[in-house]
Amino acid sequence: MTKRAAIRSLFEPRSIAVIGASGDPKKIGYSIVRNIVDGGYGGDIYPVNPKGEDILGLKTYRRIEDINGAIDLVTVVIPAGGVVDAIRHCAARGVKHAQIITSGFSEAGNAEAEREMVRIARANGMRILGPNIFGLYSSAAALNATFSATGINAGPVAIITQSGALGIAMIGRAAVDNMGLSAIVSLGNKCDIDEADLLTYLIGHKPTRVILLYIEGVKKGERFLKVLRQATVRKPILAIKSGRSRRGALAAASHTGSLAGSDAVFEAVMKQCGVIRAENLDEAFNWCKFLAASPLPKGNRSVIITNGGGIGVMATDACEKYGVDLYDDQEILTEVFAPVTPSFGSTKNPVDITGGADSDDYKKALAAPAESTFMDATMALYCETAAFDSENLAAMIADTYEHHKKRHKPITYAAIGGIHVEEAVQSLKKLNIPLFSDVYDAVSCLGIAYRYSNYLRDRTDETEEADIDKDGINRIIDGALKDNRTFLLANEGIAVLHAAGIDVPESRIARNISQAVAFAEQIGFPVVMKIVSRHILHKSDAGGVALDLLSREEVIDAYEAIMQNVKGHNAQAVIDGVEITRMVLAGMEMIVGARLDPSFGPIVMCGLGGIYVEVMKDVVFRALPLNRKEATAMLKEIRSFPLLLGVRGEVRKDIEEVISTIIKVGTVINHCRRITDIEINPVVVYEQGGGLKAVDARILIRHKEEEA
Amino acid sequence: MTKRAAIRSLFEPRSIAVIGASGDPKKIGYSIVRNIVDGGYGGDIYPVNPKGEDILGLKTYRRIEDINGAIDLVTVVIPAGGVVDAIRHCAARGVKHAQIITSGFSEAGNAEAEREMVRIARANGMRILGPNIFGLYSSAAALNATFSATGINAGPVAIITQSGALGIAMIGRAAVDNMGLSAIVSLGNKCDIDEADLLTYLIGHKPTRVILLYIEGVKKGERFLKVLRQATVRKPILAIKSGRSRRGALAAASHTGSLAGSDAVFEAVMKQCGVIRAENLDEAFNWCKFLAASPLPKGNRSVIITNGGGIGVMATDACEKYGVDLYDDQEILTEVFAPVTPSFGSTKNPVDITGGADSDDYKKALAAPAESTFMDATMALYCETAAFDSENLAAMIADTYEHHKKRHKPITYAAIGGIHVEEAVQSLKKLNIPLFSDVYDAVSCLGIAYRYSNYLRDRTDETEEADIDKDGINRIIDGALKDNRTFLLANEGIAVLHAAGIDVPESRIARNISQAVAFAEQIGFPVVMKIVSRHILHKSDAGGVALDLLSREEVIDAYEAIMQNVKGHNAQAVIDGVEITRMVLAGMEMIVGARLDPSFGPIVMCGLGGIYVEVMKDVVFRALPLNRKEATAMLKEIRSFPLLLGVRGEVRKDIEEVISTIIKVGTVINHCRRITDIEINPVVVYEQGGGLKAVDARILIRHKEEEA
Repeated sequence: MTKRAAIRSLFEPRSIAVIGASGDPKKIGYSIVRNIVDGGYGGDIYPVNPKGEDILGLKTYRRIEDINGAIDLVTVVIPAGGVVDAIRHCAARGVKHAQIITSGFSEAGNAEAEREMVRIARANGMRILGPNIFGLYSSAAALNATFSATGINAGPVAIITQSGALGIAMIGRAAVDNMGLSAIVSLGNKCDIDEADLLTYLIGHKPTRVILLYIEGVKKGERFLKVLRQATVRKPILAIKSGRSRRGALAAASHTGSLAGSDAVFEAVMKQCGVIRAENLDEAFNWCKFLAASPLPKGNRSVIITNGGGIGVMATDACEKYGVDLYDDQEILTEVFAPVTPSFGSTKNPVDITGGADSDDYKKALAAPAESTFMDATMALYCETAAFDSENLAAMIADTYEHHKKRHKPITYAAIGGIHVEEAVQSLKKLNIPLFSDVYDAVSCLGIAYRYSNYLRDRTDETEEADIDKDGINRIIDGALKDNRTFLLANEGIAVLHAAGIDVPESRIARNISQAVAFAEQIGFPVVMKIVSRHILHKSDAGGVALDLLSREEVIDAYEAIMQNVKGHNAQAVIDGVEITRMVLAGMEMIVGARLDPSFGPIVMCGLGGIYVEVMKDVVFRALPLNRKEATAMLKEIRSFPLLLGVRGEVRKDIEEVISTIIKVGTVINHCRRITDIEINPVVVYEQGGGLKAVDARILIRHKEEEA
Repeated sequence: MTKRAAIRSLFEPRSIAVIGASGDPKKIGYSIVRNIVDGGYGGDIYPVNPKGEDILGLKTYRRIEDINGAIDLVTVVIPAGGVVDAIRHCAARGVKHAQIITSGFSEAGNAEAEREMVRIARANGMRILGPNIFGLYSSAAALNATFSATGINAGPVAIITQSGALGIAMIGRAAVDNMGLSAIVSLGNKCDIDEADLLTYLIGHKPTRVILLYIEGVKKGERFLKVLRQATVRKPILAIKSGRSRRGALAAASHTGSLAGSDAVFEAVMKQCGVIRAENLDEAFNWCKFLAASPLPKGNRSVIITNGGGIGVMATDACEKYGVDLYDDQEILTEVFAPVTPSFGSTKNPVDITGGADSDDYKKALAAPAESTFMDATMALYCETAAFDSENLAAMIADTYEHHKKRHKPITYAAIGGIHVEEAVQSLKKLNIPLFSDVYDAVSCLGIAYRYSNYLRDRTDETEEADIDKDGINRIIDGALKDNRTFLLANEGIAVLHAAGIDVPESRIARNISQAVAFAEQIGFPVVMKIVSRHILHKSDAGGVALDLLSREEVIDAYEAIMQNVKGHNAQAVIDGVEITRMVLAGMEMIVGARLDPSFGPIVMCGLGGIYVEVMKDVVFRALPLNRKEATAMLKEIRSFPLLLGVRGEVRKDIEEVISTIIKVGTVINHCRRITDIEINPVVVYEQGGGLKAVDARILIRHKEEEA
C-alpha cells in the first residue's frame, strides 16, 4: 500500500466510530456525531458509549469490539485517562486511523501517554491524528468529524492547522469570506500524523487547488521539505508561521511547546520549496482565494488600468513591493490603449482612462489587455467618480473578469469609494471575484501568482554533491570524540576542510620554538601563528594569535609572546602546539557554513564575513539537497553581492569557487552527521579564476547521529 | 493679521461666490452650488453667471463686480481660458480666497497662466487654492464647496489631498468607515496655497483631532517641515506618500508633474517631525480612526488577552513589528490575572483565558488591566468558540472599551470567526470601536499610538549649530565660481572642512617634483599623493592616486607615475599640482554628508563609508535644524552602529566626534547655500577620545542661492 493510499482512508473513511459518543447536546461527543450526520457523510457511523443508548437515531455500541464491520477511522472524545486503553482496543480491532480530540497530553506535560499510544499504533499499523485537536473535515467523504463547526462549504482550499482554536475560527471566517474548503485538519500535538502525511493525500486530491498551512513549529523537517517540494509542483501552498519574532517564538514555545526555530531559516527553506509565506490571516485568505480561482500569468507583462492618477501611483509602488513587473513597451501600449483612452488620459503604464470613464469605457479598456497577445495580467483600479454609473460597477467587474478568465489571464480589482463600492465588494465576494478596497491587496494577489509561477519556471530536480573524503573526516571526528571534545581544534577544522576539497592555506603545527622557525621557513614568509589548545576557543582574546610575521626573528618573538599570553589567560590550558600558516593575502571576506538545524536538518549558509557577520547579518540559508542554480540564487540574495560582482572598478570575484565551497560544505554536513556546525570565517575570495582560501573553521560535533 | 487668521477665512468664510454657477444639474457649476446649499452653509452665497438667471432659488449675479457684500471665498468653475481674467476681477474686488476647480493649467503644461494668477493674487493680498481641484469641505462653516460628494459627516479627521480623484473616493470611503471629517481640501497644482498654509489653520482647529495628508511631491519643504513640527505637538498627523518606489516615482512625475524626491529622505524627515507614515489607505484610515477616538498610552506596559494561543503568538509577532512592548513582570501579571484566568490557562503575557471563556470571563479579564496601575494598554483577542455566547460579543467589546476609556487607557480588539464576528465588526464600526478581523490591524493601531506618544516624549526644540568660518568658505566658493567650476577641487574641499572645524590630515599642494619631496619630508612619512585637476573628478580611475609612500624615492617614483597616468587618461587635463597628505591611520570608515534636497532643503546624512556605501546603502538622513539628541538617534539607526560601539572586543569609537561632524556639516550646508552637496568619504573614526580624520570631500556648488 502506498503512503497516499494509507492516509487516504483518513480523508475518505468508509466507516467511522466515535468513542465517547453522547446523547447530551452539551457534550463534544454529541456534537461530533451530529456534525457527521448533518454533514451528509455516506459511510457507516458507529457511536460507542458504555451506556449503549442510541444517539441521534443511530445504533450505539458499548465497546469498539462489539462493532462488526471494518473501521477506517475512530474519533476519540473520552477523558484523557481512558485514551491509551481505547487506542489499545482500536489497534487490536484493526482500526486504520484514530483521531484523538481529547487534550491533556504532551501539551500538559504528559508526553509518556503519547509515546505509549504511538508504540501501540505502530505495532499494529494504525495511525494517530492528534491528540488535542478539534477533528477533521474532508469534502471527499462529505465528512465533518469536528466538534465545533456546522455547515462547512465544500470548495478548493485545504487547511492544515497546528492551532485548534484558530482552526475553528478559520472555518467561520472561510464561510464569511466565501472560501470553500476541501479539507481542514487539526494537527494538535502531532504525536504521529504530521503535515507531511496529510500533504501526501492532498497533493493527489484534485478538488484541492490550494493548501494553507498554519504552523507554530516544525518537527521532522527534512521529510516535510521533501514532501513540500513534491506538493508545490502540483499546487500552490501557503504557510502562516507564527512565532516569527523573538518574543513571538517564546510565546509559541510556552503555548504548544513548539520550538519555533530560526525564522530566517524557515523563511529561506519555505521559499526554496516554493511555499508562499503569508504574514497574517487577511493576506493568507486573499491569496488562497485568488490562487484557487484565477489562472496563473503566462508571462511578466502586467498593466495597471485606472481612472485616477493617484491610485495608479500607489499601485505602482505596490507592484515594486510584491514583485509585479509593469509592461513598458510604449509603442505597443499606445497601439493597444490609444483607441480606449481619452486624449487627456495616458497610455503609459499605469494606463489612465481618466475620471470621466464610465462602465462602458472600463469594459473597452479592460478588453484591450485581455485580447492583446502582448499582455499577461491586468490590475484594474477605480476611484469613485460622479461620471461613473456606480450601479453598474459590480456587473462591469464580473463581466471583465469573465473576459479575462476566458483568455486564461489573471485580473485583480481595487475600488475606493463609498457605499456603492462597498456593496460591489460584498456582492463580488460571493462570486469569488477579486475586488478589494485597497490597491495593495489587489496587487499583492497578482504578486503572489507571479511568485508561484516564477518558482515553477525556475525550479529543478537536479542536485549536486561534492566528492569529499568522508572516511578522512570521520577519522578526525573519532579522534576528537575519543578526546571527549564536542568541537574540533583549529588544525582539525582545517583538515576537515582539506578533506572536503576546500582550499586552505598551507599550515603545520610546531611543538616547540625551533620547529616553529623551521616550519615558517619551509612555508615561506609572511606567516601567521596561532595557539592550538582544546582549552582555548577564542584564540585572539587569549593573545594566542600573531599576524604578518616576516622573518625568523619575528617568529621567535611571537612564539614567546603567545606562550606568555596564553599562560596568563589560562594557566591550566593544555597546549598542543602553535600552528604556523602561510599568511593569506587580502580579498573579499565571506562566511560559509552549514549546520544540522533542529527543525530542518542539514542547511547551508553564506554571507558577508569578517567582523560584519554579526553586525550586518547579511547571511542567507538553504536546506539540502542543493544544486548550483540554487546556490547561485542564494549568493545573489546577500545584500553585499555587488561586492562579489565588483563595484567601483574592482574586478569580479571568483563566484564559482564560492558556489563550489557552499556545495562542499553542504556535502560534509549531509554525510557526516556527527558534525552539527561548520562555520568558515573568513573565506577570503580572490578575483575570478583566483579561487579562495578558507582561513578559519569552527566545527562542532556530537557522538551519535540523530534524526532531524 | 496672523497667518492663521488669514487662512481661517478659507475654512470659515462669511460669504462665498461661485463663478460659473449653473442651473444645469449636469454641470459642476450646479453641483457646487447645490452642495453648498444642501450642506447647510450659513453665510451668504453669491452664484455668478453671465446669464444672470437665479439658481436653486438664489439671486444670481452677472459679474463679480455686481455683488455688494464682502467676499471671503470665490469658487471658480469656468473654463480655463477665462480663469485669469476672473482672478483679476476677484483681486480687484478684494476677494480673500479663490479656489480654482478648473483644470488645464500646469498639469497640462500651461504653467504661465498659473504664474500670472499668483502674481495678481499676491499683489492684492488674495490667496489661491488649486487649480485642478474638487473643492473643499469645512465642518467649521458647514461648508461643502466640492462638486462631487454630498452628505459629508462632520467629525474629527481632516484630510489634505494632492490627488482629486482619490480625495473624492476617500470622502465615500470615510462615510462607509464611519470616519467623520472636520475638513477635506484638494490641493491640486498647489500654485499658491500648500499643505503648510492649510495646517496653519488646522493646528488650531479644535474639532480636528487627526490630520491625514495624501502627498505625491513636496515643494517648499523647509517651511512644510517647520509647520509640521509645530502641528505634531498639538495633534497626530499621518501621511500617505505615493511614488515611494522607483517606478512609482516615475508614474507620479508623469501624473502630476510632482518630483517625488528621494523616498528615504521623505521617510526620514517625516519621522523626524513626528509624522506617521501609512503605506496604504486601509492602514491610514484604521490609524486615523483609532487616534481620533482613543487616549494615548501613558507608558509602554501592554498586555495581550486571548482565548487562543495561536492568535496570541501572532499578536506577539505583530507587537514586535509595530513596536509595542509587552509587559513582562510575571509577579504582577500573576497577581493581576490569576483571579480571572482558569488554572489550565496562562497568566504569562499573552494572557490566555482559554477557549472556555464566555463574555463574562472576558469582561472580568479585561477589567483587570483597565484597573491595574501597572498596565497602560490592552490588546484583546477572540477566536470564535462554541463556549462563547456570540450574541454578546459586540456588547462585551463595547462595554470593556468604555471601561478602558474611562480609565484613559487605549484598547484594541481582534476577532477571528464567522458571521457573528462579522456582524460585531460591522456594528462596532458604527460606534468607532476598534475591532478588527486580523490581529495585525489591531496591534498596528496601538503601535502607532506608541510611536506618536514616544515622539511627544522624546522631542525637543533645542537646535545646535557649529562655529564655522563662513567667510573663509565663501571665499573658496567665490574662487571656484570665478573659475567657472560647479565643484571644488580636492584641496578646496579639504579647506572647507578645515574652515568648518572638521579635522583633516595635514596636506600641501606641490607644483613640481622637488616641492613634492620637500612637502613630504615636512609633513612626515608615510604620505599619500593625489592629482589636483579640475578636469579629473575620479582621481583613482585616472591613476592619479598613490598611497603609503614611505620615502623620498617612493615620492619621486609616484609623482612621475601619476603624471604619466593622468596624461594618458586625459591629455587635455589642466593639472594644478599634486596634493601631498599625511597618510591616515586605519579606523572605522564612515560617510558624512549634507545636501540641499530639492524637496526639503538642507539635510544631513551619515552612514557606513568606504566601498560599502553603495552596496550596503547603510545611510540615514535628517533635515535641519538638528540637535545632538537627534544626531545621536540618527547614528543609532544605521545598521552598522554596533561597529561604532565596538564589537568582538574592539573598543568604542569616538561617537561624539561623529555627532559633532554631522552638526558641522549641517551648519555649512545651512549657512553657505551656494553649496548644494557635501560628501565626506571616508571619515576615518578612531577610538573614543581619538577623534576622526576627514580624508576626502566631494563638494558641489552653484552660483545663486535658491529657495528650497
